[in-house]
Amino acid sequence: MADDEAPVKEKHAEELFKEFREVSVTEFFRKNRAHLGYSGQLRSLTTVVHELVTNSLDACEEAGILPELQFEIRQLGQEHYKFKARDNGPGIPVKHIPKVFATMLAGTKFHRHVQLRGQQGIGVSGVTLFSQMTTGQPITVRSCTGDNKVHEVKLLVDVTKNSAEMVESKEYSGYWRGTEVEGELKGVAYNTSERGPYEYLRRTAIANPFAEITFIDPEGRKTVFKRTSTKVPKPPTEMKPHPKGLAVDDLLNYAKGTDARHVGSFLSTTFARVSSAKANELQKLVTFDLNKNPRKLTWAEAEEIVKAFDKMDFMAPSSEGLRPIGEEQIKKAVLSILKPEFEVVIARSPKVFSGGVPFQIEVALAYGGNAGRPVSGDIQEGGAISKAEIMRFANSTPLLFDASGCALTKSVNSVDWKRYGVKDFENSPMTIFVNLISMYVPYTSAGKQSVAEEEEIIKEIKMALMDAGRKFQIYHSRMRREFEKEAKMNTLMKYSTELAPALSKLTDKDEKKILKDLTHLVKEKLRIEALEEELEDETEEAADTTFKEEKE
Amino acid sequence: MADDEAPVKEKHAEELFKEFREVSVTEFFRKNRAHLGYSGQLRSLTTVVHELVTNSLDACEEAGILPELQFEIRQLGQEHYKFKARDNGPGIPVKHIPKVFATMLAGTKFHRHVQLRGQQGIGVSGVTLFSQMTTGQPITVRSCTGDNKVHEVKLLVDVTKNSAEMVESKEYSGYWRGTEVEGELKGVAYNTSERGPYEYLRRTAIANPFAEITFIDPEGRKTVFKRTSTKVPKPPTEMKPHPKGLAVDDLLNYAKGTDARHVGSFLSTTFARVSSAKANELQKLVTFDLNKNPRKLTWAEAEEIVKAFDKMDFMAPSSEGLRPIGEEQIKKAVLSILKPEFEVVIARSPKVFSGGVPFQIEVALAYGGNAGRPVSGDIQEGGAISKAEIMRFANSTPLLFDASGCALTKSVNSVDWKRYGVKDFENSPMTIFVNLISMYVPYTSAGKQSVAEEEEIIKEIKMALMDAGRKFQIYHSRMRREFEKEAKMNTLMKYSTELAPALSKLTDKDEKKILKDLTHLVKEKLRIEALEEELEDETEEAADTTFKEEKE
Repeated sequence: MADDEAPVKEKHAEELFKEFREVSVTEFFRKNRAHLGYSGQLRSLTTVVHELVTNSLDACEEAGILPELQFEIRQLGQEHYKFKARDNGPGIPVKHIPKVFATMLAGTKFHRHVQLRGQQGIGVSGVTLFSQMTTGQPITVRSCTGDNKVHEVKLLVDVTKNSAEMVESKEYSGYWRGTEVEGELKGVAYNTSERGPYEYLRRTAIANPFAEITFIDPEGRKTVFKRTSTKVPKPPTEMKPHPKGLAVDDLLNYAKGTDARHVGSFLSTTFARVSSAKANELQKLVTFDLNKNPRKLTWAEAEEIVKAFDKMDFMAPSSEGLRPIGEEQIKKAVLSILKPEFEVVIARSPKVFSGGVPFQIEVALAYGGNAGRPVSGDIQEGGAISKAEIMRFANSTPLLFDASGCALTKSVNSVDWKRYGVKDFENSPMTIFVNLISMYVPYTSAGKQSVAEEEEIIKEIKMALMDAGRKFQIYHSRMRREFEKEAKMNTLMKYSTELAPALSKLTDKDEKKILKDLTHLVKEKLRIEALEEELEDETEEAADTTFKEEKE
Repeated sequence: MADDEAPVKEKHAEELFKEFREVSVTEFFRKNRAHLGYSGQLRSLTTVVHELVTNSLDACEEAGILPELQFEIRQLGQEHYKFKARDNGPGIPVKHIPKVFATMLAGTKFHRHVQLRGQQGIGVSGVTLFSQMTTGQPITVRSCTGDNKVHEVKLLVDVTKNSAEMVESKEYSGYWRGTEVEGELKGVAYNTSERGPYEYLRRTAIANPFAEITFIDPEGRKTVFKRTSTKVPKPPTEMKPHPKGLAVDDLLNYAKGTDARHVGSFLSTTFARVSSAKANELQKLVTFDLNKNPRKLTWAEAEEIVKAFDKMDFMAPSSEGLRPIGEEQIKKAVLSILKPEFEVVIARSPKVFSGGVPFQIEVALAYGGNAGRPVSGDIQEGGAISKAEIMRFANSTPLLFDASGCALTKSVNSVDWKRYGVKDFENSPMTIFVNLISMYVPYTSAGKQSVAEEEEIIKEIKMALMDAGRKFQIYHSRMRREFEKEAKMNTLMKYSTELAPALSKLTDKDEKKILKDLTHLVKEKLRIEALEEELEDETEEAADTTFKEEKE
């Protein structure tokens, strides 16, 4: 900058505000596509798979249908692909198709307290937007609700209006029920890396054992991830928020929408675990009459309720409404995929995080076998060829991106693994599996790949992992002892074999008899040692279960 | 789950879609406050400071006013604070106040191609929302555009309507110009950590040397970050997008809004570096007539243009419109704060990333002195007490959170620091300063603390850091040699002092004369060695500048 340039002239506010404008949420995401996960060629493609698959699984589960999904990716040119997603779900009533696929912040999930994969009503419209932004082409939706009328709709997004621009709409008859979405994408790339569509679908299959998922890759290869369970998953049910951790603003928001006539009945109908006995207990802790109209609650009164709730004891949230993958299913999946030397699955009981939101944690730890992430390239010093791998899931949906900022990753890394006999966690052949189950997952962005650092969530994951760590430690030290015992046995037996002929000569007794006696002695000694050690282990384990929490 | 429970009954689509609803963008962010940076007690408070300060700085700069900001935080109770932000900016016309502070996706910045800190029209409304969500209280805005009429407005957000709910509005006379925002927050915490408000303001002062920032902390302590430059920064000017890296969708979007009659004139008026000569060149590369109406461009034609642009050569984007902090200012700031042994500032020339967006990178590397992040607690083996620190900025705004997922962090960590004589980068007393300047920063979420991984941005940062690394290496190896030379000199001088009397006796010459000669010899030898090494350095440097890029 030259120093002689003209001095800056001040501008008046009125002049500056001439440019004031409002934009639609679609315009916002069109400009900020990275917020939705559309950054990078591979990630963009995986995001499309993710949005359509989670939507299909949610639809099937809500309708009580055993999901059958098919996803096909075809390459049309350089960085140019076509996708086709098909499900056997309930279908979408034709009048809702445009909003589902082209209006952001519209859907059936946002305002309900149910555990579903989707929660915002943004994702599928994001697919339409991204397809349109990169190819100018509409997406094609075919859907039938089972009435033999298939509706086929081609639509674009009207970005400024956040609504659909219908390109074509037709109806024909067909015996089918489900939804099929087809579209083109440019500026994306397919590969088989651990962040690609294949791995996304594989992990989805692991966490959703009741779903049958067929994938046809750009080379035409067909992979069927067969279901390992034919039990229709329990449809999501409404979960009442829990009184613990409730925010004043939330309480007032609920109060605004209630039909109850009194605060007392509002509280017991709106929140879980608030019985009329609890309402009576509450009455003693607040300064106003709980017979008051809930729609007239003031901020100060609501604050009194929240503070009183925090002091009171409530039963933990019920597990009803929360749908974990299940210990047995996780074990089955871990065993079949990782074939580990050791595995343990821990499921915690439901807890609550801020806003009274119930959640639950499932973790698994697998060691040895195919556990861990194979390191390509140089074999490390010390012979390690696997690095620890963290498989993150939220409501059974794999999270493949933004690992470093995620509360799940941070929880795993906050565990002092050395305590559990893992000398170098980073470089150990270990897979840690974490599933966060909740009716509301506090993602850090609309792309939903990373969970915000809620204290209670981090704590619960840590507790589960510490539990798994203790179980691993016991296994690990037993294995070490087995190994040491075998070495000891070998040494002692070697001595015995050498000693036997000498003793035979000295004592003039049968060498074979002496060797037999010596062998017996050695085995007996080792057996007693083992018994003693097992006893020790049991005492340790007993001590362990009384040990409730570890300080950071 | 008991096995005898009733089988799941299928539900029809119509039943499922009864719950279909649209929500406002404010409802969306109310539910997903973490997207805006409202997660964690400290982060939430820093986010409030960030939103108000960036808004004030943008307003002052746009109006051509030397900014004077005051930020006060007072503690009212446990996790309960009051904030007051005041600036000497242009003020806000009263009719715009409600939209500025209570309507999301409304503002003067979203659609303009200017380099500003804010870009989405979400941030300040987010402050109102967060304040209301945690305290139920409205924020108070006082503003005067310099007409002696101060408008004082108290407002809340009507969440379902994404608009203001006016609580109070008054007008009084006063000789003042600027804006003041006051509000209460709960569930937040103040501390002086490197992610707190103090550090946020300190870094803001570093990167905005023309701003005078006064901070009053909850203990009543007043800190004035004085301006080190009184030059009014150049107001942001419109930057035309660059033809390189342009997306088809963007091109068509621009074409929709143009007044130009022909594609040729549309291109040269809309894009930078597209002269009429370039338009003629383009005509030869496309199959249609550029005299066509730009509003009638088809996707295929637009695609032809984009492909042709990619093949053509264009001048790099102009630096006009991009407002770096400046080498001198960064140096001044780095020296005054870090007092390093060595520092280097590298500013790259403007480049373009996807969508034709011009950007520019400034980096600084400081070593020794107070550089690096002091490590509290144990002193590490090897004596290291500082860890490398990365100070990230986007358009002179400090980024304090979400470091691990940020392209700026990733770029720094992708440099092979060993090449430049930094044996253990993580544990070295080094501060790396990176500022990304652009009319559009591709943040990963609405919280704007982390930049998405745009290839070109990562590459540019890496190039700048490699350049800085080479300069550091030369300094570092010289320092090492100085150190080695001194050690050598000391040894040789010790021998000389011992040798001199012996030689004196043997040769019967004056001991002092002999010592003088020996000293001269030693010095001469070291001088020649040094000369040779310098020559070597210069050759290395010359070789270095021809070395354009390093493979990963």
